[in-house]
Amino acid sequence: MHFETPWEERPANSTEVLWRYSKNPIIHRHAIPSSNSIFNSAVVPYTDGFAGVFRCDNRSVQMNIHAGFSKDGLQWQIDHDPIQMLAGNTELLHSDYKYDPRVTKIEDRYWITWCNGYYGPTIGIAYTEDFRQFYQCENAFLPFNRNGVLFPRKINGMYAMLSRPSDNGHTPFGDIYISYSPDMMFWGKHRMVMQPAPFVESGWQSTKIGAGPTPIPTDEGWLMIYHGVIHTCNGFRYAVGAALLEMERPENVLYRSRRYLMTPEVPYETTGDVPNVVFPCAAIHDDDGKIAIYYGAADTVTCLAFGYISEIIQFLKEDTL
Amino acid sequence: MHFETPWEERPANSTEVLWRYSKNPIIHRHAIPSSNSIFNSAVVPYTDGFAGVFRCDNRSVQMNIHAGFSKDGLQWQIDHDPIQMLAGNTELLHSDYKYDPRVTKIEDRYWITWCNGYYGPTIGIAYTEDFRQFYQCENAFLPFNRNGVLFPRKINGMYAMLSRPSDNGHTPFGDIYISYSPDMMFWGKHRMVMQPAPFVESGWQSTKIGAGPTPIPTDEGWLMIYHGVIHTCNGFRYAVGAALLEMERPENVLYRSRRYLMTPEVPYETTGDVPNVVFPCAAIHDDDGKIAIYYGAADTVTCLAFGYISEIIQFLKEDTL
Amino acid sequence: MHFETPWEERPANSTEVLWRYSKNPIIHRHAIPSSNSIFNSAVVPYTDGFAGVFRCDNRSVQMNIHAGFSKDGLQWQIDHDPIQMLAGNTELLHSDYKYDPRVTKIEDRYWITWCNGYYGPTIGIAYTEDFRQFYQCENAFLPFNRNGVLFPRKINGMYAMLSRPSDNGHTPFGDIYISYSPDMMFWGKHRMVMQPAPFVESGWQSTKIGAGPTPIPTDEGWLMIYHGVIHTCNGFRYAVGAALLEMERPENVLYRSRRYLMTPEVPYETTGDVPNVVFPCAAIHDDDGKIAIYYGAADTVTCLAFGYISEIIQFLKEDTL
Amino acid sequence: MHFETPWEERPANSTEVLWRYSKNPIIHRHAIPSSNSIFNSAVVPYTDGFAGVFRCDNRSVQMNIHAGFSKDGLQWQIDHDPIQMLAGNTELLHSDYKYDPRVTKIEDRYWITWCNGYYGPTIGIAYTEDFRQFYQCENAFLPFNRNGVLFPRKINGMYAMLSRPSDNGHTPFGDIYISYSPDMMFWGKHRMVMQPAPFVESGWQSTKIGAGPTPIPTDEGWLMIYHGVIHTCNGFRYAVGAALLEMERPENVLYRSRRYLMTPEVPYETTGDVPNVVFPCAAIHDDDGKIAIYYGAADTVTCLAFGYISEIIQFLKEDTL
Amino acid sequence: MHFETPWEERPANSTEVLWRYSKNPIIHRHAIPSSNSIFNSAVVPYTDGFAGVFRCDNRSVQMNIHAGFSKDGLQWQIDHDPIQMLAGNTELLHSDYKYDPRVTKIEDRYWITWCNGYYGPTIGIAYTEDFRQFYQCENAFLPFNRNGVLFPRKINGMYAMLSRPSDNGHTPFGDIYISYSPDMMFWGKHRMVMQPAPFVESGWQSTKIGAGPTPIPTDEGWLMIYHGVIHTCNGFRYAVGAALLEMERPENVLYRSRRYLMTPEVPYETTGDVPNVVFPCAAIHDDDGKIAIYYGAADTVTCLAFGYISEIIQFLKEDTL
Amino acid sequence: MHFETPWEERPANSTEVLWRYSKNPIIHRHAIPSSNSIFNSAVVPYTDGFAGVFRCDNRSVQMNIHAGFSKDGLQWQIDHDPIQMLAGNTELLHSDYKYDPRVTKIEDRYWITWCNGYYGPTIGIAYTEDFRQFYQCENAFLPFNRNGVLFPRKINGMYAMLSRPSDNGHTPFGDIYISYSPDMMFWGKHRMVMQPAPFVESGWQSTKIGAGPTPIPTDEGWLMIYHGVIHTCNGFRYAVGAALLEMERPENVLYRSRRYLMTPEVPYETTGDVPNVVFPCAAIHDDDGKIAIYYGAADTVTCLAFGYISEIIQFLKEDTL
Repeated sequence: MHFETPWEERPANSTEVLWRYSKNPIIHRHAIPSSNSIFNSAVVPYTDGFAGVFRCDNRSVQMNIHAGFSKDGLQWQIDHDPIQMLAGNTELLHSDYKYDPRVTKIEDRYWITWCNGYYGPTIGIAYTEDFRQFYQCENAFLPFNRNGVLFPRKINGMYAMLSRPSDNGHTPFGDIYISYSPDMMFWGKHRMVMQPAPFVESGWQSTKIGAGPTPIPTDEGWLMIYHGVIHTCNGFRYAVGAALLEMERPENVLYRSRRYLMTPEVPYETTGDVPNVVFPCAAIHDDDGKIAIYYGAADTVTCLAFGYISEIIQFLKEDTL
Repeated sequence: MHFETPWEERPANSTEVLWRYSKNPIIHRHAIPSSNSIFNSAVVPYTDGFAGVFRCDNRSVQMNIHAGFSKDGLQWQIDHDPIQMLAGNTELLHSDYKYDPRVTKIEDRYWITWCNGYYGPTIGIAYTEDFRQFYQCENAFLPFNRNGVLFPRKINGMYAMLSRPSDNGHTPFGDIYISYSPDMMFWGKHRMVMQPAPFVESGWQSTKIGAGPTPIPTDEGWLMIYHGVIHTCNGFRYAVGAALLEMERPENVLYRSRRYLMTPEVPYETTGDVPNVVFPCAAIHDDDGKIAIYYGAADTVTCLAFGYISEIIQFLKEDTL
Repeated sequence: MHFETPWEERPANSTEVLWRYSKNPIIHRHAIPSSNSIFNSAVVPYTDGFAGVFRCDNRSVQMNIHAGFSKDGLQWQIDHDPIQMLAGNTELLHSDYKYDPRVTKIEDRYWITWCNGYYGPTIGIAYTEDFRQFYQCENAFLPFNRNGVLFPRKINGMYAMLSRPSDNGHTPFGDIYISYSPDMMFWGKHRMVMQPAPFVESGWQSTKIGAGPTPIPTDEGWLMIYHGVIHTCNGFRYAVGAALLEMERPENVLYRSRRYLMTPEVPYETTGDVPNVVFPCAAIHDDDGKIAIYYGAADTVTCLAFGYISEIIQFLKEDTL
Repeated sequence: MHFETPWEERPANSTEVLWRYSKNPIIHRHAIPSSNSIFNSAVVPYTDGFAGVFRCDNRSVQMNIHAGFSKDGLQWQIDHDPIQMLAGNTELLHSDYKYDPRVTKIEDRYWITWCNGYYGPTIGIAYTEDFRQFYQCENAFLPFNRNGVLFPRKINGMYAMLSRPSDNGHTPFGDIYISYSPDMMFWGKHRMVMQPAPFVESGWQSTKIGAGPTPIPTDEGWLMIYHGVIHTCNGFRYAVGAALLEMERPENVLYRSRRYLMTPEVPYETTGDVPNVVFPCAAIHDDDGKIAIYYGAADTVTCLAFGYISEIIQFLKEDTL
Repeated sequence: MHFETPWEERPANSTEVLWRYSKNPIIHRHAIPSSNSIFNSAVVPYTDGFAGVFRCDNRSVQMNIHAGFSKDGLQWQIDHDPIQMLAGNTELLHSDYKYDPRVTKIEDRYWITWCNGYYGPTIGIAYTEDFRQFYQCENAFLPFNRNGVLFPRKINGMYAMLSRPSDNGHTPFGDIYISYSPDMMFWGKHRMVMQPAPFVESGWQSTKIGAGPTPIPTDEGWLMIYHGVIHTCNGFRYAVGAALLEMERPENVLYRSRRYLMTPEVPYETTGDVPNVVFPCAAIHDDDGKIAIYYGAADTVTCLAFGYISEIIQFLKEDTL
Repeated sequence: MHFETPWEERPANSTEVLWRYSKNPIIHRHAIPSSNSIFNSAVVPYTDGFAGVFRCDNRSVQMNIHAGFSKDGLQWQIDHDPIQMLAGNTELLHSDYKYDPRVTKIEDRYWITWCNGYYGPTIGIAYTEDFRQFYQCENAFLPFNRNGVLFPRKINGMYAMLSRPSDNGHTPFGDIYISYSPDMMFWGKHRMVMQPAPFVESGWQSTKIGAGPTPIPTDEGWLMIYHGVIHTCNGFRYAVGAALLEMERPENVLYRSRRYLMTPEVPYETTGDVPNVVFPCAAIHDDDGKIAIYYGAADTVTCLAFGYISEIIQFLKEDTL
């Protein structure tokens, strides 16, 4: 498998650690015939290009996930129909809705996690080898939970997943936890990883936080890119931050950005179905440290931002909570 | 009376059932000297052109209704002063505010309904023959109610009105009911017509719904265009749907769109005094099935969208709740 | 028809305008085998004794109304099964629940009103001649409404009903309105009668108010006994007040008690399924001015209080809002 | 091990399926020197008497669990100091608070579950053989969860636990779920068992529900006694119901009581630190079908009620949801 | 001036630091003809007996303060009419309501503070020499504030006042602050004294706290008796605690009780207009260390509890936050 | 000191009393390296140009105030580091956050007021002579308070400050009060100035109001420009109004604009971190009656609007509340 990280150089006049793709959004709200919006989606390198799982809300504003493929990570062909799950390690295919997918390759297959409606939001799990046949597994947790994100390899012999326990509405709180499983079926050893920051220390992440892309292994620990939320008098605003977690015990936070890496600023982020949202769900990176972050904007479209892993880490360490 | 439905052809590259007028908004927020915003307004064919009743919030953000006239339905002369009501079948002219008017011709006169402030919002009724003299009648209901919409002819010998019972604030619920009256003074035989849809089946109309323009008689039933609301973490978003009601018993819903027909997407809909609102209040249509829908955008301006009745009905029936 | 008002003299040491029956509660929560509680019920003189309609919540805490009979107004035989309605002026017998009945004799029959569940609470109407056969009529109003109370005779040729528009939960607001009907089917001419009092002038009725027993005609106007509610940091507290309304235009309030007549004070009022509630629904009175008020206590049991109409009126006029 | 179920005959004049102990409360709020209240506690037969784990809130209103012993199940000696946990299958002894314990014997040991504070309420697990040494294990779930109740034997080779996912406050919702574990460490195969009942069908359990004592195996299935909550305008009221679950697949509900078995009625239930609460946490039963249910009253004291298993099952089946 | 502290010995079987008067309540809700309730009131030694200022809510539930006198501190004659204020250092006698008074002797006169309604609750101030003529002064603060309590002597040459800033409703938060004034007219040097305790450390005072009686000088610092509030699913519960403040800088807390001294337990505290409230507003003490604490119960009646200052201080120091 | 008011003529086609600067925003969100947003800031003439105090939220969304200088009032050099306060009349430099500054010259120095975090928002005070050394003084009030605005000269020998008491969140209420101080340390003589307007009379200011720039003395009274807030279903919308206050007793309102002067209309006001906010904090004016108003837009950037004092006053008087 060979791929090239989607890339555009930093604009000459920019000093930002993350910079936006000049052709954003890369996926428009009506990119497939039935869609109201396509956002908060996840991609991975696959064969000689890329594959992904996309949140497509249809024009009934029903939330579902679709497979998609791309040669260059920029132009995408997204299936017009949602993924039809087959039975994996469970017979329980009941799902009221599916949204905010993540994709992670672990060993021989690609694992999909998403927010799955089972009498309330919880974390759905499925695997695929070819992005054509998907096998749904047991939900990881009891409701209510969102933003389940797997690590890309076992830790101490066990699968590991970040998640954000929550409630059944527009949850005004939310911490990041980690849980472990020997078999992708039973989960335990739940540990708290990070809580929202005090308002006066880092307001943008003072209401709730949740993991974003699959954590990236680095020499200094797992690089976890996440979203943080502030509650203003006009609702929630979602921004992007990052943290470094200890490799063998990722429940230990080594560094955590006091400053955000990116906040809603441009029209496709500040206006849309839910104004003022940037929500990262995937990151492509390569050996020379380039990173391309896929994020949903305003719960309406899908966008790209670029950076260097080394600079992100430097940014984290400079001003840590 | 002769008129031509305001019209602009569907853009070449569009497959939408409803398409926006390229010169939207047709009425700007400051179209009269005192206005903060002009939106959620209603028009009808009148003599050799059109007349209408317009919601003009003034710069004190007091809500009132004004008469207006147009030759082509696109360019409007709106009175600078609000309508001064005369006594119709009541002496009760008390009104704390008036907003969201509808206009319906029944037999020999034009009936106006609106949200009328009488110790809370309820449905005000008036009639006019010339859009100069308006005669206010008894409020149809006790508070709290909004979006009262009359049928354009009697049904089983009685006037019929759709409405949405609600409460005294930013109501987070709301169904469409129908009520009947022998005389436009006393109302009864209240029947439930439609409730919000389950979130997982049609999220855009899962919080509340309310009737829009005067229902249109068709071979297949009354075509009711309505608004539906979703509650996101940044407030309410208003979109447009449609349903078919049984001709002689309109409390029976024959079909109802699972998908929206239109949702806020363009800047004059996604930004303004209340972002993310499209709110239809009137529709001009003619014998060849063209329809021009007048809608308020972002509680700030007045806009037009076009379509064909036959296509709307086909859209409804294809994917019905 | 002859009857004697249930009666017990004012205790020697009391100066209260209303005094409680020493054998309260007169109906216990388990007075019929299926009941969880029996309260907020209404009675009238009937043949040579009394008949009534009783709110009996069963042990599933489903709310329904039962007929009952008594020789002396103190000891009651309540039917073990709820009233089965027959069709009156409507085919709409749909009712999710029935509670808080009132009974009023107008001309040749007894009219029952109650809070009727039709996709939300509204005012149900029925009539009976014998408390055996009940004929259900059209609901008076759209939801949401509670505490519909009929006047005991037509006013200006029309039936008249007090009610309290509300919302779909534990409504934290509520005014008393009046509406008129020529035929018990269509209602209109809605007028506001009274609103809650400002907190600093009469705190006990500062959250919401609602009519209680059938208004009583007197030389000075209609005597309306009503409940008022205050919102404390431990919930709602319901007390009893009274007002005098103009005979021919009862929307005009002549006098209204600033002071309550009765507030929860004794254990069967301050504890129970809903603590701190006294809720009057009926009053028996006779020519010599004695009055026996039936009230629910703590949403659990049914009680009696006594007084003289003349003293209540004097009390009203002494210190009026 | 031999024991006699604590017992008092049904009062002569009672037709109740459950009847209260005439000497309630059996444990007073100040039964140990430091306690503010002792309630919502669990007991089991142990050696030649009984042992238990008791929720004792101290006078700082800190919640903790204490061991206790009794000869007859009526008179209890409760340890003055809270249980000091030892490490079981985890090093994570962190606990901000412990409350609402349950005790279940499975095979060779007694398992304790309780609401454990770990950055929010979740389900703590411990085991003991002698009620002196307690070994704390991994929390079963991520927060937020309460009312974790183990089955008294493995089902299909796995431990099984009922629980009620919730949020971080006075949760106004709550369903009963079941989860399975091969090892008391990792949990999965989460299935929904029961949700609150519709208000109009069984109001007393319309807000939230949660499992109570350890389920009891019977010929007809698992007898699960549970609490149900209604939300009145004066707060939450907790009552007691029961259901029968399928033996091998307890996520299947066979019967469920529409009526409550017991609701707060007597002073020690209707007044106290939290009025109007009856909350069952344990049940002693024997071969002849007598059952003694231990319940907390008003979040203040511990009480007993008696019944026959056969009558409870008959009651369930007579009027099931 | 000579007086004897009202007193009753500790019951033989009691180990409580504070014990209730066996004849509680000492003032009934109807102790004057117009009163609904008399509670949260303050008394001081005066001439050869006692005088006080009493919160009397009348039967309109208007809140006002009345003067009263007693020979023994147990039996009270309370004026039937509220205090009529004269102008002190202000012309602003506007007061929408007056409640929860405190009385403090400083140098030559008695100062009254109370919650005063001036477009919201704030702290009213008045002085008197004889409890007949009261001179109202400038309100100490802007709204919103409650529980203003003066120290009984100047500190560093300035008057000092504790208070609890709050909001305009049933405030779910509240800290104790101190402010200083050179002249009882202008206030400043505001300092935070104490905040509510973390729920897991001292739940009974985890929602809000407020000062009670005038602080008492002791060898170990100012003894401040205060109320603390917990928010249960059935509303607020008010208990009593105590703290020691540094003599010359009372913003410094030396000790603070983790445990409550008294919590609602007996019927006149657990039931009434607002259940589960004990609210101390005054304390009489003498040289031999006896203390009599006057407190309101259930927002309905006035009660007494007794103790020894030395034991209270020992209790504080034993288990301090 | 000489200066020229920043100025741009009214556009030819405009009839607005206030018109926006064509080069808005004058200060971008990233005008200093660390900033997320710069808005709600205050400027004054200083030496031969202008100086100011700017609210700069950094990329941790911590709120702080920075000094800045300008030659022309349009182009600004803002310090990259926040102001470091020195001790003025207090040792209390504790500040959790600083935001929404105002600057006022009184006699020999410049006074800064701002919203200061001291266990909740209150009004911080400091003075400077050179915008390099700032001396922090006692907070004016107890929490919770915002929008403290000093008058530019003493009134009756005392400093005077407007403020808006509030609570600890997104306060849904707020009146303007005035308080006086002899010494900038102790404050009293608090008087209510203005409350929100009734919704039906002036909706844009019906939720809360707060003072903006330093009041301007005119022949007709103090010209106070202020913000008013309406609560729509999508959150708060902030607009600008004005009032005239009596010179010697500014608590007396002479005129108050029913209509707003400016409401969010252009993209930099309707989109941003908090959509739909215009928030004035300073005004430069000169002898010929020109005025330049500095306002924050969308809690993101700083903007300018121009007008004539005489026209603003005429506007006020034409249509006053």
